[in-house]
Amino acid sequence: MEKDYVVGVDIGGQTTKIGIVDRKGNIITQTVIGSKYKSGEAGLFIQAVCDTIRDLAKEVGMENIQGIGIGAPNGNYYHGTIEDAANLEWAKGIRVELAKEVSLALDNLPVTVTNDANAAAVGEMMYGAARGMKNFIMITLGTGVGSGIIINGELVYGHDGFAGELGHTTAVKHNGRPCGCGKKGCLETYCSAMGVARTAGEWLELSDEPSLLREVDNITSKDVFEAAQKGDALALRIFEFTGKKLGESFADFVAFSAPEAIIVFGGLARAGEFIFKPIREAMEANMVSIWKGGKVKLLPSALKESDAAILGASALAW
Amino acid sequence: MEKDYVVGVDIGGQTTKIGIVDRKGNIITQTVIGSKYKSGEAGLFIQAVCDTIRDLAKEVGMENIQGIGIGAPNGNYYHGTIEDAANLEWAKGIRVELAKEVSLALDNLPVTVTNDANAAAVGEMMYGAARGMKNFIMITLGTGVGSGIIINGELVYGHDGFAGELGHTTAVKHNGRPCGCGKKGCLETYCSAMGVARTAGEWLELSDEPSLLREVDNITSKDVFEAAQKGDALALRIFEFTGKKLGESFADFVAFSAPEAIIVFGGLARAGEFIFKPIREAMEANMVSIWKGGKVKLLPSALKESDAAILGASALAW
Repeated sequence: MEKDYVVGVDIGGQTTKIGIVDRKGNIITQTVIGSKYKSGEAGLFIQAVCDTIRDLAKEVGMENIQGIGIGAPNGNYYHGTIEDAANLEWAKGIRVELAKEVSLALDNLPVTVTNDANAAAVGEMMYGAARGMKNFIMITLGTGVGSGIIINGELVYGHDGFAGELGHTTAVKHNGRPCGCGKKGCLETYCSAMGVARTAGEWLELSDEPSLLREVDNITSKDVFEAAQKGDALALRIFEFTGKKLGESFADFVAFSAPEAIIVFGGLARAGEFIFKPIREAMEANMVSIWKGGKVKLLPSALKESDAAILGASALAW
Repeated sequence: MEKDYVVGVDIGGQTTKIGIVDRKGNIITQTVIGSKYKSGEAGLFIQAVCDTIRDLAKEVGMENIQGIGIGAPNGNYYHGTIEDAANLEWAKGIRVELAKEVSLALDNLPVTVTNDANAAAVGEMMYGAARGMKNFIMITLGTGVGSGIIINGELVYGHDGFAGELGHTTAVKHNGRPCGCGKKGCLETYCSAMGVARTAGEWLELSDEPSLLREVDNITSKDVFEAAQKGDALALRIFEFTGKKLGESFADFVAFSAPEAIIVFGGLARAGEFIFKPIREAMEANMVSIWKGGKVKLLPSALKESDAAILGASALAW
C-alpha cells in the first residue's frame, strides 16, 4: 500500500540533514545532526541517524512512512553502501553497508542510497528547475564539483553505480592542479568553491595588481564574490576564468548526452551573471553548431539550498 | 505478427550497403549501391534504395520483412531524418525525410533511422563484443570519430536525438586543429584516419627525422600502420600520440557513464597494440581510482567490418 510520507537524509562532511517529506514535496519536519564520527564509529553514526528518524516520524506516525532515501558522498545505488568516502572519517577506506543497517534498525523499511549530486538531480526533476524534463545534467558546485545525469527520465548509474563523476573530468590537460582524487587538472580543482579560492591565491601571488582580496586572510569563494560585487577587477576575472572552464567542460558534456538543460546548483551558482555569463559564452564557443544559439538551457537550481538536499534524497524513496 | 527478416541499410559518403538479415544475425543477401547523388537529388537516391530493397527482398518475400533500419551520417532517430550531412551532397544544408519517404515507397513498412555509430553500437550489442552488456560506449574510428552510447541496454539519444557526438569533444584546448564542424581541437581532428594522416604530415614538416613515410605521397593512416609494422620510429610515435589522445578522452567518457567497456571499431582499430597499448595507458593515468586496474574493458569490435554496418542498422528494425 502506498503511504503518505518519506524520509530524506542528506549526509555531508560536517552535518547530516534529516527530514520527513510529503508527496507534494513539503518538508513536514526536519533536523540536523553531526556527521563527525571517528574511524570505526560508523555504527554509532547509523544509530544516531535511526534514532533521529524514529523521533521525527512520531509527528506523522512510523506506519505512514513509505521509505527512506539517503544522499551521501560516494553513495552507491546498486550496493546501498558508502564506499571509501574521503570526507567522512568513519567511512574512509571501507565500505559501509548503510541501506542494510538502516533498514534493519527501522522495521525493514526500504532504504535507497545514492550520491549527493544524484539526489540533487532527482530533487530538481521532481520539485525544481527540471520539472517535466527527461534529459538534463545537474552540476553541484560546492566544496567539490558533483554531477547527476538524467537520461530518459532516469538517473544514470552506469555499470558499477558510480556514473556521473564529471568533477573529475580533465579541464586542464597540461600542468593541471593536483586533485584530491590523485589525478591532475580535474574540473573540481578549478571550479569548486575550493578551486575558486585556489585561483585567487595563485593569481594574487603572480602579480602586484591591487585587489580587495589582498586584505583577506584565508580567502573563500564568498570573499571573491563580495569583491566582485564591489567591482574588483581581479575578482571579476576569477569568475570569468572559472565560468570559462565550466562552459568548456559543459560543451563536452552536451556532446555526450544532448541534454535539454544543464542545471547549476550550490554556493557558486549564487554568483549569478558573474559566473553564468562566461559559462554561456564558453559553451557557445565550444559546442557543435546543432546546439548553438541557446538550444541547451543553462539554468540555476530552483530549489532552496537548505531544502534541496532533503528533498532530493527523499525523492529517491518514492 | 512478428516476421523473420529485417533490412539493414548503411549509408556512407561513397556507397550504401543494403542487406536482408534474419533473427540470428545472418546476412541472407546483400549488395552495394552508390551514395554520390547531387544536391537536389535526394529523391533519386531514395528511389534507388527502395528499388534495391524490393529487389533483394524477392529472396525471402517482401511479406516476411518486419521493418527497415537505416544508419546514416547525421541520422536523427526522433525525426527519422538526415539533417545537414556534410558528406552527402544531396543532404547538405537540408533535412531529408528519409524514414517517411522510404516507408511510403515500401508498403508502409516501419523505418527506423539513426546515425551510423549508433547503429554500430546496437550491432555490437546484439551480435558482437558487447553481447550481454547493458552499459558500454562504441567508438568508431573512420574518416571521422563517431560514438554510440548504450546505457541500461538502450541507445542514448538525448533531448534532440543528437547525443553521442564524442568525436567533437575537445581533445586539445589550446591551438587545437580546426575541425570541419567549425570548432577547434576536436578529438576527431587527431584520432580519425584523417587525423592520423594529418599528424604524420605535421610531424614530417617539423623535423628531419628519417622515416619511411617520407617516401609516401598523400599519406593515409594505412601507410602509417604499414610503416609502424616495419618498425618506423616516427610512425610508432604517431600511434602512441593518437592512442594517448584517445585514452585521455576515454577516461572522461568513463567519468560520465561508468561503462562496462569501451569498444573500438573501424580501420584504426586494426592497428592492434600499436594503438590499444597507449589508449589503455592513458585511460589508466586519467581515471579516478574506482575505475583503475582494468575495471573498464577496452575491446576491439567483434564484428566483421563489412558486415557490421548492415547488421547494426538492421538490428534497429527489430
